[in-house]
Amino acid sequence: MSEIRGSARCPIARTLDVLGDRWTLLIVRDAIGGATRFSQFHGSLGLPRDVLSARLETLVEGGVLERRSVHHPGERARDEYFVTQAGRELMVVLSALGEWGARHRPWDESPLLSFTDADGTPLSTGFVVADHPVALDEVVATRR
Amino acid sequence: MSEIRGSARCPIARTLDVLGDRWTLLIVRDAIGGATRFSQFHGSLGLPRDVLSARLETLVEGGVLERRSVHHPGERARDEYFVTQAGRELMVVLSALGEWGARHRPWDESPLLSFTDADGTPLSTGFVVADHPVALDEVVATRR
Repeated sequence: MSEIRGSARCPIARTLDVLGDRWTLLIVRDAIGGATRFSQFHGSLGLPRDVLSARLETLVEGGVLERRSVHHPGERARDEYFVTQAGRELMVVLSALGEWGARHRPWDESPLLSFTDADGTPLSTGFVVADHPVALDEVVATRR
Repeated sequence: MSEIRGSARCPIARTLDVLGDRWTLLIVRDAIGGATRFSQFHGSLGLPRDVLSARLETLVEGGVLERRSVHHPGERARDEYFVTQAGRELMVVLSALGEWGARHRPWDESPLLSFTDADGTPLSTGFVVADHPVALDEVVATRR
């Protein structure tokens, strides 16, 4: 991986060491949406097989996916990929990315992946303090 | 830009058309942190100048940054880059990425960019419904 100046201090940069290209985030999207097999990721994304293999490996090394050998009846055993708890925590990132895209790059079909509570109520993402949501225009970003 | 299968339907993929590599997201991080000049982005990130130029152009075309000619006293006029409202809305994405990195790729120094409310209280990001935060383990992700 190429080194980013000041990377170590910044948790955004450290996260992008694992997730720093579009394929990687879309693989996580598909895994959170239930894909586990190489063929499912390949069919969804259509990226070259060697690139997909490399990105899956990065996600396994980064603790986002777990590789397990699965033996379905009547098939040979094969590796499948399952979202870890750390991977599941990326739902907030994916949902925030999706909301931004829905607002600023709109499209007339419903999104591939949706986030709801257990009753099916659509969820949004945002800033929170002490269990209260905080409006975006009240948020202060400070560079140290 | 390369085409991603099923890209159009997915607002995550559409967002990554603009933000789909680590440099781009780190440029947005720096812009939200107050950087406006080419030399500031270059000094922070240390990426090749032609790559930085291309990424800044993508962000201007994507409506995340606005390019303005600025004339400081005693200097020649030069282009600077300012975060738009759409760019500011990416704070949720950056904060969520940073929180994930702080949890799963920890480091012993404080992060470069922090998000607080107007009183300086640190903010977190998360799922929200009807103005109530929702615990991550209550969130259901559905692939349609």
